Amino acid sequence: MTIQEKLDKLGICLPTIPTTMGAYVPVVSTGNLLFVSGQLPLCDGQISATGKAGSQLGLEQAQQAARLCIINALGAIQAHLGTLEQLTRIIRLEVFVNIAPGFTDQAKVANAASELLHEIFGPAGQHARLAVGVAELPLNSPVEIALIATLK
Amino acid sequence: MTIQEKLDKLGICLPTIPTTMGAYVPVVSTGNLLFVSGQLPLCDGQISATGKAGSQLGLEQAQQAARLCIINALGAIQAHLGTLEQLTRIIRLEVFVNIAPGFTDQAKVANAASELLHEIFGPAGQHARLAVGVAELPLNSPVEIALIATLK
Amino acid sequence: MTIQEKLDKLGICLPTIPTTMGAYVPVVSTGNLLFVSGQLPLCDGQISATGKAGSQLGLEQAQQAARLCIINALGAIQAHLGTLEQLTRIIRLEVFVNIAPGFTDQAKVANAASELLHEIFGPAGQHARLAVGVAELPLNSPVEIALIATLK
Repeated sequence: MTIQEKLDKLGICLPTIPTTMGAYVPVVSTGNLLFVSGQLPLCDGQISATGKAGSQLGLEQAQQAARLCIINALGAIQAHLGTLEQLTRIIRLEVFVNIAPGFTDQAKVANAASELLHEIFGPAGQHARLAVGVAELPLNSPVEIALIATLK
Repeated sequence: MTIQEKLDKLGICLPTIPTTMGAYVPVVSTGNLLFVSGQLPLCDGQISATGKAGSQLGLEQAQQAARLCIINALGAIQAHLGTLEQLTRIIRLEVFVNIAPGFTDQAKVANAASELLHEIFGPAGQHARLAVGVAELPLNSPVEIALIATLK
Repeated sequence: MTIQEKLDKLGICLPTIPTTMGAYVPVVSTGNLLFVSGQLPLCDGQISATGKAGSQLGLEQAQQAARLCIINALGAIQAHLGTLEQLTRIIRLEVFVNIAPGFTDQAKVANAASELLHEIFGPAGQHARLAVGVAELPLNSPVEIALIATLK
């Protein structure tokens, strides 16, 4: 099954126009390494949820936001490469969760992102990861995820 | 125009002796990848501004600090390579802003760094980026920026 | 002296089974680059210390936790590669310290990690670094450290 067929099966429609929040680009590749900028849970150019996990947002809403970050990352890669079929491995996720004091379930938020990548890419979706709880994020986003991958 | 000529035109004088705040080195390169350690807004070995963006520091002061981080990063690269002309691309910026509660303009702080790189390097300065708001930074710095680049 | 002989001399015993806190893997390598996931100060599957540096934990306890993160990172690499002798360079440390308001000694916490790498690897242990203070970490850990290295 191709990656596109898996996305279709999962009912995931990738955004076609990646959005950046400033003077940078969504994706840079060098050699076979590909770096995706920190993604926010944007949907049609609007942020889908705001606030801190553990107070304004529950765990499930933060997990939905994390999944949306991954969908946006994949949309940015597709716009950059023309196709996701060139990806050979997801190397690393960097997950920053905007948290209320005392919220230590960053790993559970990040798991939603990790598991989606595994569903889509199978073994090639297995990645290294760091997940931390930060004080604030751009646009008061609950989560920001950057990604490193390899391509053919 | 060479990079040095662009720096001259912009009136930017790079520090010649990079400073680290501990038991690490300012720059490590491997293959054609170059990693610059997290830079603080140091000037002549002193931190040029301290405190949190959004309370002790306004947006403009935080942006000045972000530009100074980039100047220090370029100074560290020049000390490491002997010249900036060997750089082929700025791959990624990692921007950590020391923020007061409720300050969500990290992207605007980071833009000051991104725009300076674009002024100096043109298209080769276009990079991926992550920008988050953190709880504290070394020396009570308002911003810390790490950088990944490629060289010939 | 081999790396294993240095570890023996320092009395360091590496964990044999790396632990992850979620749906990711401890180590991913691509080409000669190796990415180690964010490590917590786990010991026998339990976290050895919890809380924020500067309030619940003093500097020395946070430094011990940082050293334990490095030991776990090396254990993860050994489990992945079979041996540490294949490592050619520690490229970068990413140090996230869970801090109480006003604690700005992140660099001193991170130095404990950096110095241990230098003791074990000598010049090949010299690395670039970023160190920031974050609002919360998984399991209420005082520190999380991710690592990038190169191999033969």
